[in-house]
Order: sequence, then C-alpha cells, then structure tokens
Amino acid sequence: MCGFLGVIASRPVAPLLCQGLQALQHRGQDSAGIVTVDGPRFPMHHGLGLVRDVYREPEVLARLTGSLGIGHVRYPTIGRGVLDDAQPFLDRRPGVVMAHNGNITNYDELRVELLSRSIHLLSACDVEPVLCLFADALVAARPRGHTLDDVAAALADTARRTEGAFSLVAALQVDGRPTLLAFRDPSGIRPGVLGRSAEGDWAAASESVALDALGFATVGDLPPGELLVLRPGEEPLRRKVTTPAATPCVFEEIYFARPDSVTAGRPVVDRRYALGRRLAREWRERGFACDRVIPIPDTSRPAAVAFAEEVGAPYREGFIKNRYSGRTFIMADQISRADALRVKLNPIRAEFEGHRVVVVDDSIVRGSTVQRILAMVRTQGPREVHLVIHAPPVLHPCYYGIDMSTEEELAARRYAPDPRPGGLTLAEQRDMEGRWAADLAVDSLTFLSVAGLDAALAERRCAACFDGRYPVPVPAEKRDAIARERRGVGSGS
Amino acid sequence: MCGFLGVIASRPVAPLLCQGLQALQHRGQDSAGIVTVDGPRFPMHHGLGLVRDVYREPEVLARLTGSLGIGHVRYPTIGRGVLDDAQPFLDRRPGVVMAHNGNITNYDELRVELLSRSIHLLSACDVEPVLCLFADALVAARPRGHTLDDVAAALADTARRTEGAFSLVAALQVDGRPTLLAFRDPSGIRPGVLGRSAEGDWAAASESVALDALGFATVGDLPPGELLVLRPGEEPLRRKVTTPAATPCVFEEIYFARPDSVTAGRPVVDRRYALGRRLAREWRERGFACDRVIPIPDTSRPAAVAFAEEVGAPYREGFIKNRYSGRTFIMADQISRADALRVKLNPIRAEFEGHRVVVVDDSIVRGSTVQRILAMVRTQGPREVHLVIHAPPVLHPCYYGIDMSTEEELAARRYAPDPRPGGLTLAEQRDMEGRWAADLAVDSLTFLSVAGLDAALAERRCAACFDGRYPVPVPAEKRDAIARERRGVGSGS
Amino acid sequence: MCGFLGVIASRPVAPLLCQGLQALQHRGQDSAGIVTVDGPRFPMHHGLGLVRDVYREPEVLARLTGSLGIGHVRYPTIGRGVLDDAQPFLDRRPGVVMAHNGNITNYDELRVELLSRSIHLLSACDVEPVLCLFADALVAARPRGHTLDDVAAALADTARRTEGAFSLVAALQVDGRPTLLAFRDPSGIRPGVLGRSAEGDWAAASESVALDALGFATVGDLPPGELLVLRPGEEPLRRKVTTPAATPCVFEEIYFARPDSVTAGRPVVDRRYALGRRLAREWRERGFACDRVIPIPDTSRPAAVAFAEEVGAPYREGFIKNRYSGRTFIMADQISRADALRVKLNPIRAEFEGHRVVVVDDSIVRGSTVQRILAMVRTQGPREVHLVIHAPPVLHPCYYGIDMSTEEELAARRYAPDPRPGGLTLAEQRDMEGRWAADLAVDSLTFLSVAGLDAALAERRCAACFDGRYPVPVPAEKRDAIARERRGVGSGS
Amino acid sequence: MCGFLGVIASRPVAPLLCQGLQALQHRGQDSAGIVTVDGPRFPMHHGLGLVRDVYREPEVLARLTGSLGIGHVRYPTIGRGVLDDAQPFLDRRPGVVMAHNGNITNYDELRVELLSRSIHLLSACDVEPVLCLFADALVAARPRGHTLDDVAAALADTARRTEGAFSLVAALQVDGRPTLLAFRDPSGIRPGVLGRSAEGDWAAASESVALDALGFATVGDLPPGELLVLRPGEEPLRRKVTTPAATPCVFEEIYFARPDSVTAGRPVVDRRYALGRRLAREWRERGFACDRVIPIPDTSRPAAVAFAEEVGAPYREGFIKNRYSGRTFIMADQISRADALRVKLNPIRAEFEGHRVVVVDDSIVRGSTVQRILAMVRTQGPREVHLVIHAPPVLHPCYYGIDMSTEEELAARRYAPDPRPGGLTLAEQRDMEGRWAADLAVDSLTFLSVAGLDAALAERRCAACFDGRYPVPVPAEKRDAIARERRGVGSGS
Repeated sequence: MCGFLGVIASRPVAPLLCQGLQALQHRGQDSAGIVTVDGPRFPMHHGLGLVRDVYREPEVLARLTGSLGIGHVRYPTIGRGVLDDAQPFLDRRPGVVMAHNGNITNYDELRVELLSRSIHLLSACDVEPVLCLFADALVAARPRGHTLDDVAAALADTARRTEGAFSLVAALQVDGRPTLLAFRDPSGIRPGVLGRSAEGDWAAASESVALDALGFATVGDLPPGELLVLRPGEEPLRRKVTTPAATPCVFEEIYFARPDSVTAGRPVVDRRYALGRRLAREWRERGFACDRVIPIPDTSRPAAVAFAEEVGAPYREGFIKNRYSGRTFIMADQISRADALRVKLNPIRAEFEGHRVVVVDDSIVRGSTVQRILAMVRTQGPREVHLVIHAPPVLHPCYYGIDMSTEEELAARRYAPDPRPGGLTLAEQRDMEGRWAADLAVDSLTFLSVAGLDAALAERRCAACFDGRYPVPVPAEKRDAIARERRGVGSGS
Repeated sequence: MCGFLGVIASRPVAPLLCQGLQALQHRGQDSAGIVTVDGPRFPMHHGLGLVRDVYREPEVLARLTGSLGIGHVRYPTIGRGVLDDAQPFLDRRPGVVMAHNGNITNYDELRVELLSRSIHLLSACDVEPVLCLFADALVAARPRGHTLDDVAAALADTARRTEGAFSLVAALQVDGRPTLLAFRDPSGIRPGVLGRSAEGDWAAASESVALDALGFATVGDLPPGELLVLRPGEEPLRRKVTTPAATPCVFEEIYFARPDSVTAGRPVVDRRYALGRRLAREWRERGFACDRVIPIPDTSRPAAVAFAEEVGAPYREGFIKNRYSGRTFIMADQISRADALRVKLNPIRAEFEGHRVVVVDDSIVRGSTVQRILAMVRTQGPREVHLVIHAPPVLHPCYYGIDMSTEEELAARRYAPDPRPGGLTLAEQRDMEGRWAADLAVDSLTFLSVAGLDAALAERRCAACFDGRYPVPVPAEKRDAIARERRGVGSGS
Repeated sequence: MCGFLGVIASRPVAPLLCQGLQALQHRGQDSAGIVTVDGPRFPMHHGLGLVRDVYREPEVLARLTGSLGIGHVRYPTIGRGVLDDAQPFLDRRPGVVMAHNGNITNYDELRVELLSRSIHLLSACDVEPVLCLFADALVAARPRGHTLDDVAAALADTARRTEGAFSLVAALQVDGRPTLLAFRDPSGIRPGVLGRSAEGDWAAASESVALDALGFATVGDLPPGELLVLRPGEEPLRRKVTTPAATPCVFEEIYFARPDSVTAGRPVVDRRYALGRRLAREWRERGFACDRVIPIPDTSRPAAVAFAEEVGAPYREGFIKNRYSGRTFIMADQISRADALRVKLNPIRAEFEGHRVVVVDDSIVRGSTVQRILAMVRTQGPREVHLVIHAPPVLHPCYYGIDMSTEEELAARRYAPDPRPGGLTLAEQRDMEGRWAADLAVDSLTFLSVAGLDAALAERRCAACFDGRYPVPVPAEKRDAIARERRGVGSGS
Repeated sequence: MCGFLGVIASRPVAPLLCQGLQALQHRGQDSAGIVTVDGPRFPMHHGLGLVRDVYREPEVLARLTGSLGIGHVRYPTIGRGVLDDAQPFLDRRPGVVMAHNGNITNYDELRVELLSRSIHLLSACDVEPVLCLFADALVAARPRGHTLDDVAAALADTARRTEGAFSLVAALQVDGRPTLLAFRDPSGIRPGVLGRSAEGDWAAASESVALDALGFATVGDLPPGELLVLRPGEEPLRRKVTTPAATPCVFEEIYFARPDSVTAGRPVVDRRYALGRRLAREWRERGFACDRVIPIPDTSRPAAVAFAEEVGAPYREGFIKNRYSGRTFIMADQISRADALRVKLNPIRAEFEGHRVVVVDDSIVRGSTVQRILAMVRTQGPREVHLVIHAPPVLHPCYYGIDMSTEEELAARRYAPDPRPGGLTLAEQRDMEGRWAADLAVDSLTFLSVAGLDAALAERRCAACFDGRYPVPVPAEKRDAIARERRGVGSGS
C-alpha cells in the first residue's frame, strides 16, 4: 500500500516532508525515506520504523537541504524490513529520485528486459524498474539537458511498458530547473492528490491528509494517465500520456484511506456514511430490529453512526480499543486467546447485556479476528447479535497493491467457493450469509450487496475484490506467480 | 495517577500481571514493574517504558516465578523517568512488596519520622514510607510469624499516620501462607477494584479493565477503610481499619479512567453519557441550536453521543486523531504551530463548513490545546461554534494524586480569580463563560454546572477541583509545599 | 572476581567513582553501580554494561550528589546479567551501602539464618547477607545514633558468621557523621588497598590502579581482619576485628590483577618479572635453548620479557591481538575454528619460522585455547616449540572468588588425576608435562614448580589452586554444592 | 585510511568477508559494508559501527548470498558517520560494485566532469566518481557483454583521469563470468595485497592480516599500475594499465598498518625493529645512556624492543593501557586532565623512579597527547627522561589518504616553521629537538633522521610527510582546498 509525498517550494522542504509523512503513517510503518534535491546533490536519509523515530535527531533533518524533495513510508509486505528496499529510489543518470504507491504486475519481465540492457536492479522494490526505464529512456533521448518533451516522451514510454496500478512522484532537472513530476497510471486505481500552498508551492501525495498537515489546499485528484509538471509559483503543466480509464480502488474508501482524506472532491468519511446508511436499509429490509449499534473501532465508526441514524437506534461505543497494546508477546499456553484479545479490544458489558445489538465492521478478509470478537461478544449476555459489514464479501485477491490474501485465504471463499465475475446474486449472498452466521453463532450476518455498494457510491470504481472484474488485465500465469510469492512469504514468516 | 495490579492464584502470576498491566497502561507510561513472591524469594523486574517493551524478552517473564505478585505502571510526574523510583517497592524485613495508586500528602513528615527511627528512604516515591511504616509496625509487634491480627493492627497503625488519598496492594506471608492484601484509604478518593476468576483466584487493581484482561469477574470496588486479605480458593477476609467517609474522585469518571471500567457497579461510560445528556439540557436552556455534535477525541466521545441524542442533532467524528504522532520534533520556525497540530488532530471540513457545530470536550485544565483546536476549527468555515465541556470549570488544584497544575496554571482562574468554596453560582459561571468565549472567538462556551454534575452522577464524590471542598484536609503549608514542588519541576523540565 | 571502590572526600565523589571504576573494569564488565550518600539520601544508578556506557549521560552523574559513595563493577559469573543482582546493595535501616569483592562460602546458611529472623534476601548476590547481618547487628545494639563501638562490634559479629574470602566497603553515618568503612577478612585472600589524596580524602578499592586514576596516593593494603574508619581530613581509625592469618591470593598476582597495581608495596608486574626469571632458570636446567621468547598477550608479557633476559634470547611480540574482535558470531560450518582464532590472535610467521621458540603463557585452566594457539604456531614453521607457563599446574578449584572450574574441567587433572595436597614433586610434574607436551605436539612443556613459585615470590600466599592447601576450610559438602552450581550454570549457558 | 577486502571463491563469500573485515577493523571503525554478487543480484548490507555489531544478526549474513563480494570498513574522517557515504558503492549499469582505500585529490573536478555527462554523485565519498567513470567508460565501449579488453581499457581510462593515491577492488561480470578486479594506482602509495586459498580462491585486501584471517596465503603486494583479473581456480590475468612509479607510504609502516601485516614480502614489525635499532644508534651517538627502555603502547612496542637490545638496556612495559576506556565523558572541571589520562594510560612508578628512562613513541603529529604523557612521567620520579621517536618530524600534511592535519596543526612546525623539501639537516633537527625538549621538560628529544629512515628501510617510499617530496603532484590550489575542508571539519566537531 505505502504512501508517498513530493514537495517543490520556495523554501526548504525537509521539514514539510517529515510533517506530511506522519499524516501518511497509517499507509506504512515499516520504513521511511526522504531524498531532497539541492542543486546537483541528493541529500537522503532512509530508516526502519516510524517517521518520528527515523527523523528524531535534528542533525538528520538539517542535512536534507533543498527546496525539492520526495518522502515515502512503506508497508511491511515481505517479512521484517530490509533497509535496501526502502523508497525513494535514485538513478545517478540523469539524476532522478522516484517513489510510488501501488503494484507493478510485470516486475519480473521488466527486470529481465533491463538486464538485457545491462541494467541491474539493486532491490526487490517494484518502483526501481520504473525508475530505471524512465531514466534510461530520458538518457537515450538526449544525454543531458532534458526538456519537458523528453520527459513526457520518456514517461509515456515507461508507462507503456509498465503494467499494474500505481501513482508516482519524481524529482529531477527539466529545462535546467528543479522540477517535481507526478503521474498516476490511466486506471487511476491507486490514489494520488495534488495540493498547493498559499505561496504557490506544490505537493503531490497519496492522500490529502498529507496536504492538510502541510497547510496546503487540496486542488484535486491526480488525473489518471496524465503527467503533471510542478514548479513553485507556476501553474502545473499537464501532459496527457495515455488514455485514462479511471476506476479508483473502492477498498481505499472502505478501509485503507484515512476518513479525513478527500478523493474526487468528497471526504472519505462521507462515503462511509453513505455505505452505512445503505447497509442499514438493506438490513432493515430483512426484517430485523435492534436497540444498539456498535462499531468495531476504528474504521467502521462513521458507517455505524449512519447505520444507527438510519435505523433509529442508539449508536454506542461498545468496544474500547487499547492504544498501547502491540503484538501479543505472552505465550499462548500462559494466557487464553480470548484474554489476549481483551487487552486489545474490551467490550462494555452494559452496552451488550440484554440488548439486540448490531455489530458493524468494515470488511472481512481472513475472518479470524471477527470470529474471536464475536465469541467475546457472546460472553457479554446480548439478546441478539447481528453482524453487519459495510462492504460486500471479498471473493477475489487484489493484484493492484492491496495486501489481500490468495484465494484460499479469503474467508468468504469457504462459503462461496466458485464465484462468477459480477458478484453474487442477492439470493446467493443471503444463502452464504446464513451458513456463515451459523458458524459464527450470530443471529444474522449481512454484507452490503454489490448493487448497494454501487448505489451508495455512485462512482466508477475498481471493485475487483468484490465482483472479480479486474479493470487492468492480469494474465492467469501472473496471478499464479503472485499467489505463489505470497504463500511463500506467508509460510516463511 | 499510576496503576497497580496484585494477583494471587493457584498458577504462575507473571503472565497475568503482564497482561493486566497493559490494560492499565493509560494510567502511566513512564515505567513498569513486577515483583512476584516465590517462597522466600522475590523475583523482580522493573524497566522504563511501556509494558510490552519492558517484558518483551521471554526470559525476563520466565524469571518471575511464583503464584503471588504485584505489578505497577507509573505516570511520569517528575521529569524524565528514573528507574530507582519505579514501583513496586520491597522491604526485606519481614519480606513485603507494595504498590499504590494515589498521593501521600504528609510524605515529608513520614520521611522525618522514619529517619528518627533510623530508617532511610531510598527513593522519592511516596509509597516507600507507607511500606516502611507497615513493615516496621509488623516487626515491632512480632519479629516473625505474623498473624492476621498483626497485619490488621500494623495496617491500622500505618493508615492512622498516613495522610492523602490512595489504594494499595501488598504481598507477604501471613500465618505462614502467601497472602495478597488490598487496602483503600477511608476517603475512597482513589479507585480500586476486586476481581475473582472462575477458579477462585483473586486480583485487586486500579481499574476493572485490568480484571477484564485477565478474564476475572469484577466483584466490586475495594471498600474504603477496609483491609482485604486474599488467598486463592478462599473467601476474602475483611477487616475494618478505619471509619470510611467515601468520596471517590469525580475526575476519574470524567477523564482519567477508561470508559470500559466499572466503578460502584456502573460503567464509567454510562456516567459520561449522563454528563453529556445533562450538559445538553443545560446548553439547550440557553436557547442555542445546532446541526452537528463533534467530540474532541478520544475522551469526550460518549458524552458527545449522548449530547447529540438529547439535542436531536447528528453526532459526527469531525476530528481524526493520528495514532502515530508523538511529540512534535520539528522546530517551531520550520513549521507553524497550527500545521504541527494538524498532524495530530485533523478536522474534516465537510463536518464543519456552513454548520452550527457543537464541539464537546471533557474538561479544561491549562487551556492551551483547546485554544489551538478552536483556532483550527475557525478555518473550516463553520456558521457557529459552540464549545461545551462535560465538567465544571477546574478552579482548584488536586492534592490527591491527579497531576493538576497549581492555581496560577489553571485557565479558569484567569476568568474567576478568587472562587469561593462551593463553586460558582450559575450566574457567575455564565458571566465567566461569556468572557472566556470572547477570548476563544466562539459563539458560546458552556461548562456543566456543579449542580448539574451532582444531578447527573447522583453519587457522593470528591469534586474539590470544581468546588474547592477538600474531603481530606490539606493544611495551607502543605498546599504551598506541593505547589512549590510542582513549579520547580515545571521550570526544570 | 568483581571490583569495588569507596571514596569519602570534601567534594562530590560521583565523578571520582566513575573515573576510578573504569580502572577496575578488567575485574568485571557485566554491570556497574554507584550509590552516593547525601545527608539521609542515597542517590544511586546501576546499569548493565561498561562504566563508560552506564554513566554516559551527564544527567545521570549529576543526580549522584554527595561527598561519600561506593561504586562496583561485576564479573559475569552467572549467565546473562540481571540488574537486580548488581552491587552496591543498601539497607534502609540504619541506612547502609555496601559492596564487596570475593566469595561468601556459607551464603546458603546465612540466607536461612536471616530468614529465621524474617529478613528476606532480594538477590542472589552474596554481599547481600553480609549487609543484612551487619545492619541487623547494628540496629540490635542500638536503634539509631550508632557509635564507632557499635559499628566495630557489629562488624566483628558479622565477620564471625561469614565464611569465605572477601574485602568490602560500606558507607553510613557513625557518630552522626558520614563515614566510609573498609574491611578485609582475616585471610586477606582477596585484595584491597587504601589511598589518600593530597587534600586528605580517602579511598578504598580492590586494586591500586583505581587510586592512580583518582590521583590518590596508595597508602598500602587493607590490613586483614581490621576495620578502617575513614573520614576526610582525619587519620583512619583502625579496629582489630579478628586475628589475621593473611594468605593473599597468588592468582591475582599471576593473572587477574592489572600489572600496574601495587600489592604489599610491590608492583604486580615486578612479581611477574620474578616468576618469568625463575621459570627461565628451571627451564634452562632442563637443558633447552632457544632463539626467540614470545608471550601470548596480554598477561604474560612481563614474564616473557624477564624470561628472555634470563636466557639471553631476544624477546619478540610474535602474536598480534585484535583489539576489536568480540565473540565469534560466524557459524562453525562457515569458518574453521583455526581461522576464527586468527581474527583474535594472529602469529607473525617471521618470528616463528625456522626458530627455536619459547611460547610463554600465564597459566592453564581449561586448556582449550592454548591448544588451538599451539596448533596455529605449528603452521608457522618453527624448528622447535617450547611452551612455558609462569605458574604451576592448576590442580584444585578455587572457592574464594576466582571463577575456576570444577575439578573435571581442569586440564591438568587429565594428566594428574589424583593430586596430593602440597603439589606434585618435581619428578611427577616433569612426567605429567611430558605426556601433556606429547598431546600438544610441542617439544616441551614446562610449568613453574610450586617450590619455584614460593622462591620467586617469597611471600605467604594462598596457592590452593596449585597445592590444594586451602587456608580457609571449605567442608566437602560445600565444595560439592559449589561444583554442582557451577556445572549447572555451565550447562545452562 | 579505510580498509577493503574483495573475495571470489567457489563457496559463499559473506562469512569470509565478515571474518576478514574484522582483521582490518583498525583501519576504520565508523561503518562497515558488504555487497555480494549473486547472478544479476547484488545483496548488500551497510551499517554504522563495528563489523561484529553490523553483522551480528545471522539473518543479515544469510541474505548476502553469492561467491563473489566486496567488504569495506571506513575511517571516521568527517564528523559523525553518515550511512549514505558507506562503501562499497554500486552502479546499476553495467552492474559493478567497488570499494577503495585512499584519497582522490581531484574529486571536485571529477564531480563536475561527471555532471557534464548528467551523472550525479549521491555521496561525498571519493570512490563514487571512480566507480562512475569506470562504469560509464565500460558502457560507452559496449552496452553489455563486456570483455576483458573492455574492462582493461575502461580502467586505463579511469586511472588516467583520477589523481591521488588509492587501491581498489571491483566486482562485475566479465566475458559473462563473475570476476573480481583489483587495481593499485601507479604510485603504489596506498597498500594492497593479493591472497589465494589452498582451493584456488582469491582475495585482495588493504592488508595481509585480512588474508591471514581467511586462511589464505599472501601472494604479494598488488602491483602498482596493473589490473588483476581474478577468478577461482585460475591464475590471475594481469594487465598493465599505466607505468608504475612505486613509492609506498612509509607512514603505514611506522604507524598505521598492523605489525603482523606483510608488505613487499617483509613483515611490518620487522621494519619497526629496524627503525628502533637505527634510532638507538643515532641516539647513542649523542652520548646518552639509560637503564630502562619503555614504549608508549601499542604501536611503538617493537621499536622499543629493538632499541633496548641495541643499547643493551632492559625493555620494560612501563605504561599499562586500559582496554576499556573510551572517550573521556566526565567534565573537565570535575576531574583534572592528568587524572583523565591515567584512566587510559597508567605508568608503573617502579619502572621510572630513580631511573634514566628512554620513552619510545612512533611519531608526533599534533603533539598534545605526548606532552600530557611526559607530564605524567615527570611525577614518577625518573632521574632522566629521554623521548625518542622512531620517525622523523612530521613537517608536511598528507594528501594521499592519511588524516594528518593541516600545516598549522603539525606540532613540529612550531619548531621548524619553514622547512625546505628534503627534510632538515641533522644540525637543524638537533637544534629543533633541543628547543622542543625544553618545552617538554625532558632531558632530550630525538627523532629518527630522514637519512636514518632511508637507511633503516632501504626501500623506495613516499615520505612526503617527513621530507616534503610529494611523488604525485598536488597543485597548490588543491592543497589549499583540502586544508580548508579539514579546518572546517575540525572547527565543526
């Protein structure tokens, strides 16, 4: 998943990058990196851990001079962090820094192609081949003194060869001036926003919360398929690179993005309210009633608020999340799993006991945590328990950058083993929910329907994880390769 | 403030203590300590930092053998943590471990008295003189082989000499058997609860959430003025030590305790709903109306939910709190204070813009944070802003263990410099609120009235910080001494 | 083994203690501790690791106020360091700090006895029962206001009950004044020295190098069986506590003490010269000749210098020790043991090749390291290799504080399995050396004879490890207990 | 200074690199780096600190797969370490790793030249431009599939443009096979050796001690001006790149290299004996006599041994160096500088008192340490003190990689402010020594004469620091630039 931030300003950018990256920390806590551009120099500092720890020492920040720079936070997909894979990445020739957010599905092909040009990748990070393709295309066009046309052509060439879903920022000299580039692939699956300060400085980031943290206004989403060329005090230059066919990721809206982020001009939280309201209607139509609506914190809070309003029942914070608990370090034979869970998430008995409660969650992927939470709920003496999910069942893996398991690990597949593209019919869904609810020992389980999702959002979206309709083709052999890699990682950790 | 947990069981207690202390982590993050009792041995481990870090290494936990033990988490009152002040404390003779939660107001007198018996305190921690008095009284009564009567007499003697407000646990041999003691001073100002497991194991803790984390049932509050003697598989022995005059701290209910804790048989969250509901009525009586009720997370959420229900306006999570931000480490001249705040707490414009919003907070002590939050709110384009506080104005320092500033640092004192005991009249309060609201540039500011507080809780409580009626006398010279110390600490840090 | 330092001065002692402890660091690198006395307070700081790391932060040292204090460095005898066992130790009543150097052989008896008085030991460190006996005797004599007579009587009482070999320092109020005590048990087996500054400040330490580091003059050894009472600007008061029968440890002189330390008015290095010279004579009498004398660094350098002078052959530094190598962390199957050794100790071929070399070592305990060094020497092409050891064969375990293995681990026991007390006859020794030399594939092996040791030092010494004559009786069952404990530790690590 | 090690083998090289780097740790303790070559991949790990700490975790070493690789340890020249400057460095195209030992005097020119080709340096490390020049020349000759001729031509081109003094290793594919390159510049000022294992594996390193640590035989010095192409099981291919004019650095022999290293077929220690012997003759000719010869450890030991043999006086270890002392962390006002020194270096009074002592040191650069040592010596009651230095006075800065101060910081310049190239005449030297000896309050000061240095070593050497004859021209403006940089660094730290 990861988060990037690029800033070009008329003042030093390192404090801004550091500030903004903290607002993107929810997108990745494994490593942080900042590279600035100061004339021909590229001061840099990468480190494992949180932004606040990696840049704690004042002298570290002081070294990162320059008014153009890029920062990145990384999601820990593959085992324990290895610093050599930490973004941003650089190419000495012609002096380019790059960071991205997304997944390149033809990494292996690109690696082989680059090798055939005697270019060796130094990491397992999939922004590196994109950087190398871009830098090589630039230098091939003109050894130095690159113009805007060179850059646009090189990026077009790079985009043509690169498969997957991503947004990226890059920093380099164009027409002899420091320049920040922002590009979002034509699918627009991965998010990306543009911001500007009152002084005319520019920033591009994974989410608008990073712009808020800088005091920059959010101009809007990065336009899919277009290159933005950013310089302080000037309007962005826009170059169409490929034909867009925008289908932004719906899972960002449901789960991953911060609620205070704004995409397509609308706050994420607003969509979550809409999802909760629509879910409430679908649930009520089943003939149920309740006297408590309780979210599993933190993500499902807004949807639960809206659900409660819609059904006219009180919204209650029935679970308290422990801000200080980390991984459970006490051995399983010393403490029961139920007790271990209660350190992290404690139910308030009075909110459950004797009540008909609706428990709201955002989605079910592997399904083990929600199962344990419901077991805990049952010990609190509720009269009825209704589990409602403000997304449809996840039936298909994601190949575009969300770390969602292989098919066999998706809990929904146990109840709908062979789903057609397009999603389940409502009847099929209700049938599946019934069997699943029995296993969970709840009175009902209700997912949002795929139709309900469409209705609530009223936007064109990639919802492949729900409906199996992949907007960017991923051939079967690549799906297998990705699944194999994920399994390997899983078994290794 | 701090948190303690004592457990006596028919199995090893170290994993239980470690598990339970994590649920008390909100009461103190500076240091953690565990001492167990294993025959005549007292295995122990103290460390600076969070429980999950101090006990991360499995071999550390493995050393802490025994089925009786005490754990503690400490609030960082005095500058950076010093390990030598970390509880629990021990006395070799007759082999006692002790930890507490509270404040001993005659620490200096006790130190001098002990010194006159040639007993030297090794720390600045105020549980140490209590331990020494108790141990000394025990040994004076009988050099070894202490009976229950000895223990009760020694504790009575100790309680008589000790002033302040506290709950404590102690572990030692009584009648030749490992025994857990729990005691709460007669004022009952500081909290303390008793729990039991299905197997008949016992635990005493600062808050019931620690019992939940152990899978223990909450039996009830520790009875003020009584000694509980706990052994696994037996009913607790209760010995009345002093005449109780219970006035539990109301600030625990308003702010400090976790909402999922249960005190006096009622969940803390429930009281926060009652406070919010009462506040809403008082606010409505002033003739105001709104279309959004927004809490400043995390504490004021329940009161805001109730407030919204009462006034019939939508409850909205208008601020998003960053779970990853620590202290601001970027220098003030590099980032504006407003931008620094937005990394920690980001408003969602759509929830404010064009709306008449009620912003709910739990209390105002120093007042600087809420001032900056409101400045940020004003940039979000609200039509009206009403700040409501679900507690009365804090006009008096606390001498019973809550780290509330000296008089000059209490923001409310700037608007009511010379308050009578008993609290302000409603007219005085409204007048003060009006002047303060003008300074904050909000449309109104409404504190809960002292009468409203009483009505909402309908319990006898220490509310000295609001009404200046101190249930346990603190002579003027002691108040001055405490204030001096706090000022010194403040200027030193 | 460990090292202690006590200082009483007319200025703050913490910087002095910190400075002096670094000079004792060779006696223990596991943990460091300092406790000062400032009126009735005992500021303290203990930590795992080297002195320079434990006291690196200036604020740590700044907290340790007072002009009387005690420091300690600990040798890692039992597995990985546990901070709770780190000296100095304190007793609140009557306010005493204590640290020692040595071994208490009746620790278990003392623990039981103290327990019968309801005094519980909180650690596995054997100075703790000594401290408790002393404090208890003091308080029994007079509850407070202890006089010099009280102290002398209490120490006499403590010494009478304590078996083993030790030197100690203690700090407390005597006759109402801060006072440093120093005591060395009557056997004088463990070292201890007294120092004074030009200003009349006093220090007592394990070795005189700590005094040098303070700029204090070395007055002389602590007198065995006597109590020294030290106050700045006054002559020491001396109280005879028990009848001395001084037999200082010869192994300190041979191996453990720093060469620049002075004991009994003579530098340790001087004794090492004498041992080397005597060894040379004994070796020459066997009819050997050589053209290179090479020490195994660092300890055997002085003896090798003297050996070379005596036999008239050049002294050469034929091995270079790597100052930076720590434990070997590369797995055995990746690097041969011989190569691993060469990182730590590299031979210079030119000093060996074609030469008749004498390799000098200080002693052989387990024998595995010297065996590997000789294997390495053989690859350097020497004409002859003579291994000479400037001590007799170690045939008996130490029960007085030197970490020397159980009988079965002493390499010499494989060649002399059942030694009589008094040491081997020269014929027996030569026979044993012959068989051992064959196993080591060297041309000869020569230990110093026990008679030679006596002649070279011309002092009364405990040489029990060589001759089996234990000056302080250690009953068979205790020897067994100590051996069992060591074996357990060995197998556990 | 720094140290490098390259290994190509028929087995994994990471454990070998790790082992060998530890033997080079004296050349640099600031950072360590290893890059291996495994097919097209370049696993790598760099870290700040000692080799044993950077590679402590087994999983780190396990990631570094491949049977070809390069390691490096860095000397902390510029303030606190910055990881981005840590060698080895890589170029993606055509996939080359490189590390060096030395100093590139035209770094700034190379940086500008590379920039004109749009190649940006990412660090301040001077091996990076060498790597870039080499990689660029290779790719310019042939985009991929580089042959031995390509490599030799590219290296010749690189060597032609590069000024300064250096040895380097590089790893890449040549003729489709993994290949280790070793090159030493024609001046041969910086050291470099070639080693081979019994199995036909090859290694090139800064010093032969690294080869010893691998169990590799030392084949000999790297031939100046020649490229060695190394593959396991094959004889090295040698390509003459430039005409050699070898003048190896004499300061390596005197001070920097480990005594057990072998250069030009002769152990370093042997040259130190020769220097000591020659110095003794020159000193004796001045008519002095002594009864103790005492080295300042560790470097001057061998010279002192030889000096003692030559003058027929006993060699004594009169100073004991503390293995554990780090930087002095106690503030100057708490401990006198003399006392601080005694923690690090303690004199043994008996070796000085009443004696005519010769104190031997290797060289004098800034002169402050030796001054304090002599002040300490004077407190030990010597009859006479003669300071002898087994090198001539350092009168000229080094521009070839030894961190020797600017002219104004060289102590000798205070006594010989305007030295002619060629060194002082003996009369001039004796005059200068006389004035300096008076300042040091010693009976005499004797440096080795420049003629004596030549006679003792009988080898062609760069001795520019002594005689001002720089074998590789360094124009005045570059000298000034280097001096400015050093001053800046000095004042900043």
